[in-house]
Amino acid sequence: MAATTTEAPAPRVNGNRLIARLRELARIGGRPDGGVNRQAFSTEDAAARTLVVDWARAAGLAASTDEIGNLFLRHEPPGSEGQLPILSGSHLDSQPMGGWLDGVYGVIAALEAVESLKEQAIALARPVEVVAWSNEEGSRFAPGVMGSAVYAGHVKLSEIADNRDPAGTRLADALKDFLAATPDLPVHDHAQPIAGLVEAHIEQGPILENEGRTIGVVEAVQGIRWLEVTVRGEAAHAGTAPLRGRRDALLAATSMVQAMNEALYDPDDVIRFTVGRFIVEPGSPNTVADRVLFTIDLRHPDAGVLKTAVETLRRVATETAPPCTAAVKVLETLEPVRFDEAIVAAVASASEALGLPGRRIVSGAGHDAAQIAPHYPAGMIFVPCHKGISHNPAENADESDLIAGADVLAGTLARLAGR
Amino acid sequence: MAATTTEAPAPRVNGNRLIARLRELARIGGRPDGGVNRQAFSTEDAAARTLVVDWARAAGLAASTDEIGNLFLRHEPPGSEGQLPILSGSHLDSQPMGGWLDGVYGVIAALEAVESLKEQAIALARPVEVVAWSNEEGSRFAPGVMGSAVYAGHVKLSEIADNRDPAGTRLADALKDFLAATPDLPVHDHAQPIAGLVEAHIEQGPILENEGRTIGVVEAVQGIRWLEVTVRGEAAHAGTAPLRGRRDALLAATSMVQAMNEALYDPDDVIRFTVGRFIVEPGSPNTVADRVLFTIDLRHPDAGVLKTAVETLRRVATETAPPCTAAVKVLETLEPVRFDEAIVAAVASASEALGLPGRRIVSGAGHDAAQIAPHYPAGMIFVPCHKGISHNPAENADESDLIAGADVLAGTLARLAGR
Repeated sequence: MAATTTEAPAPRVNGNRLIARLRELARIGGRPDGGVNRQAFSTEDAAARTLVVDWARAAGLAASTDEIGNLFLRHEPPGSEGQLPILSGSHLDSQPMGGWLDGVYGVIAALEAVESLKEQAIALARPVEVVAWSNEEGSRFAPGVMGSAVYAGHVKLSEIADNRDPAGTRLADALKDFLAATPDLPVHDHAQPIAGLVEAHIEQGPILENEGRTIGVVEAVQGIRWLEVTVRGEAAHAGTAPLRGRRDALLAATSMVQAMNEALYDPDDVIRFTVGRFIVEPGSPNTVADRVLFTIDLRHPDAGVLKTAVETLRRVATETAPPCTAAVKVLETLEPVRFDEAIVAAVASASEALGLPGRRIVSGAGHDAAQIAPHYPAGMIFVPCHKGISHNPAENADESDLIAGADVLAGTLARLAGR
Repeated sequence: MAATTTEAPAPRVNGNRLIARLRELARIGGRPDGGVNRQAFSTEDAAARTLVVDWARAAGLAASTDEIGNLFLRHEPPGSEGQLPILSGSHLDSQPMGGWLDGVYGVIAALEAVESLKEQAIALARPVEVVAWSNEEGSRFAPGVMGSAVYAGHVKLSEIADNRDPAGTRLADALKDFLAATPDLPVHDHAQPIAGLVEAHIEQGPILENEGRTIGVVEAVQGIRWLEVTVRGEAAHAGTAPLRGRRDALLAATSMVQAMNEALYDPDDVIRFTVGRFIVEPGSPNTVADRVLFTIDLRHPDAGVLKTAVETLRRVATETAPPCTAAVKVLETLEPVRFDEAIVAAVASASEALGLPGRRIVSGAGHDAAQIAPHYPAGMIFVPCHKGISHNPAENADESDLIAGADVLAGTLARLAGR
């Protein structure tokens, strides 16, 4: 085992308070099936935020917001005045059929960690702030990771203010109502610079659970390519058209998917290749398909591997299409993110100090921290969730793991903000 | 070239009249895109029928109907009294986005052939009757081939009288209105026995056109199996779930379709294997599919081959499903039909006599004649259509081929009903 710094303080959080707060928040937007529907800028989202502000103020933290509705809860220990803060948090909004932990856990674990540091009067050289980024999910208003993207300057509010939800409500109007629900919060008119950010989150994958590990030390977030492949053939009568003369778009597309999956075979099982949408037209049992449209979700931590993989997919599409034709379109490009080495080391050190040696891990999903990482030092802490299930009412985790993650977060903040 | 009987008369039809009638009927239910929408028992269907009755009566034929609305137009030459008739015809109803020839051609070619035989006073030993079977398409009221199936006794009107169209209209009510539109037609209360039936039809496939042949001598109608395969896997996050542990229903289903297609490879290109519907759930680009449902349309003229092919498909499904599971359900079974050798020979002889040696062919689509064939001698004549397109406004054929088909039909009827 590698030598680690264990001199830093190892504060323990109040586990009962952490779990009780998560359970109470799960009732705001709670679904009959046990899940949570608390979409961005909804009345439920505003209610959750008000409750978190109440808890933070009771703990002596200073609450503020910004134009996109990001929430900041600041602890400024004596002697830290004038220093850039360390931030920690995630988001309070959920998918429409979401679980009780995605996002919320990172906010409440941060609140718990900061409150514990304050209660235990741990000496810090920097302010620490809990953050709840707005609209991470993007399920009501596109785009997702909205609050962190605006904060990082990747998107301007003015560019998306007219985006509408499925009911036709403008983002700017929903945001106005949302901010009006907390009229006493000061509103920053620009993003403050920060010293660093660490985000706790459930893994949303099965690796930690499968390996029996409690803490994932996230060192990177995979890059993503979304591709759309359109295969065009020719419709024909299933009973009368001989097979030899057909241009069957479904046969071409199924062969293409198989060949793509084989061409991307990775003995290390790192690459992620998923065809999740596959639409066949005209879709009649007795008509040969003239068109298939399918999507590819491709992920890898290495930008070069992703680039080569896209070239491979284009080549395979061209090779396997005949007698049909295929067109490949790139819908979305997200470059991989590597987290800051000092933050990764702080997470590793904090988990070692608690006797929970962390497992280095790459995030498969996107997160707010990945928006911040290009500009400020950033990192993440993962805790296991049951069977890797997330974005689902069945999302769950062991309470002991949730508490351990908050302990590691407190230790990490103590290291990053410590003297 | 095989020796053929050319002693029988070779009457020629009035080609201009044939085409003019087809063009006139195409206007009843004519669509702006050039196609025809004349669904069963609609006002358009009744109008087309009234027009055909008018033409038949003007030619001296006796019109009658039966409880399901089948239309009979009888020519009873001197000396044929008391003999069972030879029937010829097809149907007047169309698909909602249908063409101008499917069905109608068989009725009007029969009317033209019978009228020509009568005009030319060809001596016949049997009556000949034009028939227009009700509701062949089944697009408005299920089931299809309704008129011929009721006539053959495969279905009883009382069993289907309560079937409803998409607008909620009962079949019995639509049928009542339909029969009321021709109040002067005598209604048979039971199906009359017949001496035989021959149906002319566009091929609805590309074989005759590709081979440059004018006449298809139809010797059989393929058997059909409709299967539905359900592949079940497990949903997972496209970014976080390692490929090795996935149970990806789409990967399993695409592999299955490929393996099925290979397993059924037929060097003679007779078998028809089509996967036309393929539905993926949940269908989200970043979620591994947990369920795929696909249909198989399988056709072959030999019942034994079909049986073995279904067994092969079941075996391949079982072999290729893991780590997913597959369930195969048979939705529909139609046994192959072999047409009567004497009728097939009469069609071949009539086409030889016209210098248009027929190509033996198997019908890929189902037809009214296949309903009659188990009970009475039956056969069919195919003429080429453009690019095999049918059930489509673009359906078309060369006028010269349509006329040649009616000539062959007249010769066939002369042989079958002749002295």
